[in-house]
Amino acid sequence: MRRVASVPFLSVLSATICCFLSENTPNTSSPNIIIMLMDDMGWGDLGVFGQPSKETPNLDAMAAQGILFPDFYTANPLCSPSRAALLTGRLPIRNGFYTTNGHARNAYTPQEIVGGISKDEILLPQLLKEKGYVNKIVGKWHLGHRPQYLPLENGFDEWFGAPNCHFGPYNNTVRPNIPVYNNSEMLGRYFEEFKIDKKTGESNLTQMYLEAGLDFISRQAEAKRPFFLYWAADATHSPVYASKPFLGKSQRGRYGDAVMELDYSVGRILTKLQRLGIDNNTFVFFTSDNGAALMSGPNEGGSNGPFLCGKETTFEGGMREPAIAWWPGRIKGGTVSFQPANVMDLFTTSLALAGIGPPGDRVLDGLDLTPVLFNHSHTLQSRPIFFYRGNELMAVRLGQYKAHYWTWSNSWEEFKQGVNFCPGQEVAGVTTHEQKEHTQQPIIFHLGRDPGEKYPLSVLSKEYQDASNWISIVVQKHKETLVPGMPQLNMCDMAVMNWAPAGCEKLGKCLKVPKSEPWKCDWPH
Amino acid sequence: MRRVASVPFLSVLSATICCFLSENTPNTSSPNIIIMLMDDMGWGDLGVFGQPSKETPNLDAMAAQGILFPDFYTANPLCSPSRAALLTGRLPIRNGFYTTNGHARNAYTPQEIVGGISKDEILLPQLLKEKGYVNKIVGKWHLGHRPQYLPLENGFDEWFGAPNCHFGPYNNTVRPNIPVYNNSEMLGRYFEEFKIDKKTGESNLTQMYLEAGLDFISRQAEAKRPFFLYWAADATHSPVYASKPFLGKSQRGRYGDAVMELDYSVGRILTKLQRLGIDNNTFVFFTSDNGAALMSGPNEGGSNGPFLCGKETTFEGGMREPAIAWWPGRIKGGTVSFQPANVMDLFTTSLALAGIGPPGDRVLDGLDLTPVLFNHSHTLQSRPIFFYRGNELMAVRLGQYKAHYWTWSNSWEEFKQGVNFCPGQEVAGVTTHEQKEHTQQPIIFHLGRDPGEKYPLSVLSKEYQDASNWISIVVQKHKETLVPGMPQLNMCDMAVMNWAPAGCEKLGKCLKVPKSEPWKCDWPH
Repeated sequence: MRRVASVPFLSVLSATICCFLSENTPNTSSPNIIIMLMDDMGWGDLGVFGQPSKETPNLDAMAAQGILFPDFYTANPLCSPSRAALLTGRLPIRNGFYTTNGHARNAYTPQEIVGGISKDEILLPQLLKEKGYVNKIVGKWHLGHRPQYLPLENGFDEWFGAPNCHFGPYNNTVRPNIPVYNNSEMLGRYFEEFKIDKKTGESNLTQMYLEAGLDFISRQAEAKRPFFLYWAADATHSPVYASKPFLGKSQRGRYGDAVMELDYSVGRILTKLQRLGIDNNTFVFFTSDNGAALMSGPNEGGSNGPFLCGKETTFEGGMREPAIAWWPGRIKGGTVSFQPANVMDLFTTSLALAGIGPPGDRVLDGLDLTPVLFNHSHTLQSRPIFFYRGNELMAVRLGQYKAHYWTWSNSWEEFKQGVNFCPGQEVAGVTTHEQKEHTQQPIIFHLGRDPGEKYPLSVLSKEYQDASNWISIVVQKHKETLVPGMPQLNMCDMAVMNWAPAGCEKLGKCLKVPKSEPWKCDWPH
Repeated sequence: MRRVASVPFLSVLSATICCFLSENTPNTSSPNIIIMLMDDMGWGDLGVFGQPSKETPNLDAMAAQGILFPDFYTANPLCSPSRAALLTGRLPIRNGFYTTNGHARNAYTPQEIVGGISKDEILLPQLLKEKGYVNKIVGKWHLGHRPQYLPLENGFDEWFGAPNCHFGPYNNTVRPNIPVYNNSEMLGRYFEEFKIDKKTGESNLTQMYLEAGLDFISRQAEAKRPFFLYWAADATHSPVYASKPFLGKSQRGRYGDAVMELDYSVGRILTKLQRLGIDNNTFVFFTSDNGAALMSGPNEGGSNGPFLCGKETTFEGGMREPAIAWWPGRIKGGTVSFQPANVMDLFTTSLALAGIGPPGDRVLDGLDLTPVLFNHSHTLQSRPIFFYRGNELMAVRLGQYKAHYWTWSNSWEEFKQGVNFCPGQEVAGVTTHEQKEHTQQPIIFHLGRDPGEKYPLSVLSKEYQDASNWISIVVQKHKETLVPGMPQLNMCDMAVMNWAPAGCEKLGKCLKVPKSEPWKCDWPH
């Protein structure tokens, strides 16, 4: 049954058929929420953000119908911590998704990680569930793969996807292949039941994720239940993949093929909402988990547009993300908001949309963006954006100024082995290969006239002094009140890998678990 | 008198008032032509091309109503040669706008240049005039400032602007201030009658250029004469300037203020065409003369988006240009063409639009783009783009491949003095500070997956061999048939400067001409 399509249509009918409509009017207190989170997709990968090949017509149209956020950030330059931040509304330094094994080291959840999302954290779907939402995650989880950390233990009602990155193939002796779950049981493994041809780049996974998303939307629309869909497709993470109809179609090679298939999928999802007549009652947000992985380029890495470096770094290229908000009828189309915002705001904003008060027992780092979305408010313009790498506050943005307290791309040792987070880019004294401390005199850039972080302000200028004073007050306040969470990403153990996920017995795919020998994980970056 | 506004309106009226209409229907054999050529504006300076600040709503709307050309090039990474190429349809190596004083050196027309556009060249306005067009240039000429080289000697009927860059202020003893002309006589000089406040950045010049353009359009529309307007505003060339209402308005500083005023002016010109009802009979093309001048950044330099280096270089950042074609009713709006094209094509295309055959006595480098503009033809996709620096063919693009036969950013000597054409960018073996020859084994990039020219193809790969073979055939053919023109930019002389331009007597602004002492100009880049 098709719902009422639009507000004008509604107003024409309202006088005569009130009772039919009362069942079908947008449930503005519980709108559906869809967060589409891409994997390693860069700010510069969308036509609307300046990708020369302009191969994202659906995302460009989504922007034309919604709000573009050019100043949107993730919470961390790496996947697991940024995803944990999105779902908890809190910086990784608070929610525990960081390591203290080294200074300013990026950590994530490979198969050997012991930890995962702490039970002390409250996740967005847990709160939404209390208001009657049905919650589904499609795609990559990455908040821990041991049973207690999985999505259905953390507020989600449904899951189709994998707990870790689609690395492999492995031979299932030293290291098992990553399982793909349907809800709480595995369906098979990557490179086995779920094919990824690393040579040709062919895989049907994005199509499967698309169908899983569409099916979920249809079912909830039919049942008239408010839903939260967290659509976390990962085709743009190395090894990048696309299905046959998209392979070889992009001017950009295999990475572009993956982008085109994701763009197509976004278009299909938005069209589905329109066809079901629930587009005027659904908030959709598109973004990515961290900057493009330039070390995988050019065949398997994306673009960070004009921004410096990429994934793993706290320069703009590592944390500035493509971002589009869409809600026909509620959000004015074709607008651009320069609000500095981030993935943690999606937590707080989603709660506000659902009419749920934020938990009162903890510090949240996300802001409620509804004044920006609906009223183009400027009151939040001078909120800070914090750039952490592991346990260290590397940089802070305030207004157009960004102060770097520490600079680091990667170590000389890694760099000399060919690992380069800033290929073709080298800013003297900035993209350093030692961890350089500037806490006494931060390096400050004006991101408006220098989005590429190439020209540090002169420390002798009044502009530098003013910006420095302004930011240091904010940093001092942040540090004074910060209580770091228990670090969850310190310990590793081969015994915790995906040897025998739930459901493996039915499939005859349980593997022998080796003896537990925990060690402190080594995080080189 | 207002003309008929649009085709639908026309069709409604056609049966009844045929005779009125016959006078007012679009003259499709002689459409008006407007070429808007910016100065040092970069590909990445427009919202539609990915500028994070999105401060060009009028240009973005122009793109939405027209064709965006992301693969559009100038003919040279410096102003004078690229402007000469646009107006002659020929590479600078053919039309003489280059130097042989050194190998691969950029040359232009400073005040001390003796040469200018050769009388052997045929300029676009000269050909259009034969078909009844009225031609005006507004803004910067730069094809030689001695009397015989000026616009009214070369096919233009009107001129408001200056022959050289707005450098200065000078004290009128060692070097005179640059004159501003109205037609064939000076009206005053920059920094004297025509103010540019280098400290505040304030100048009303863009407003003057705008009004001159609007007035010309109105007069020709009134007189029902086909016209060619070459609108060459220069506010984004250092020292950048803007008028008071725009100063301080941009997130990007003074450079952004200048862009905003130019964007506003473009909007005003397009609106004027619509109000006059001649928009459906006017071809408008917007582009720039070379890449953004990164050495003037960040306060006075623009953005080349994802492309390598900028002005003065033959990397993409030096020669890839923002480009938009607009013609409501004839050009399908909201389209993107990946046709590799360049400013010389504007010459040939303009002739085709005006129904004029190209001169048969010379080689033209421009192609007729009308099949691309009107029929989205792909037949021209594999045309080559040649990247010259002075007398040397540095690189060639064919399809998505670009082969560098020579690499050079600038000399170590200049670089050590702080002149940097690739700030924050350094690609080993590519952005070299010596002129490096690779003619035996060119460095080849795939611009689709690597628009930033960061990852040379492996010379051992089949892809490299195929691309190399393909391009070398095209290069061989080009070189075999190339007859370089007489170089016009070799000699300098203080006596030829703007001491006593025509009209100076009336104003009492003639200066004493020093003794002629010609020398071979020194071109460091």
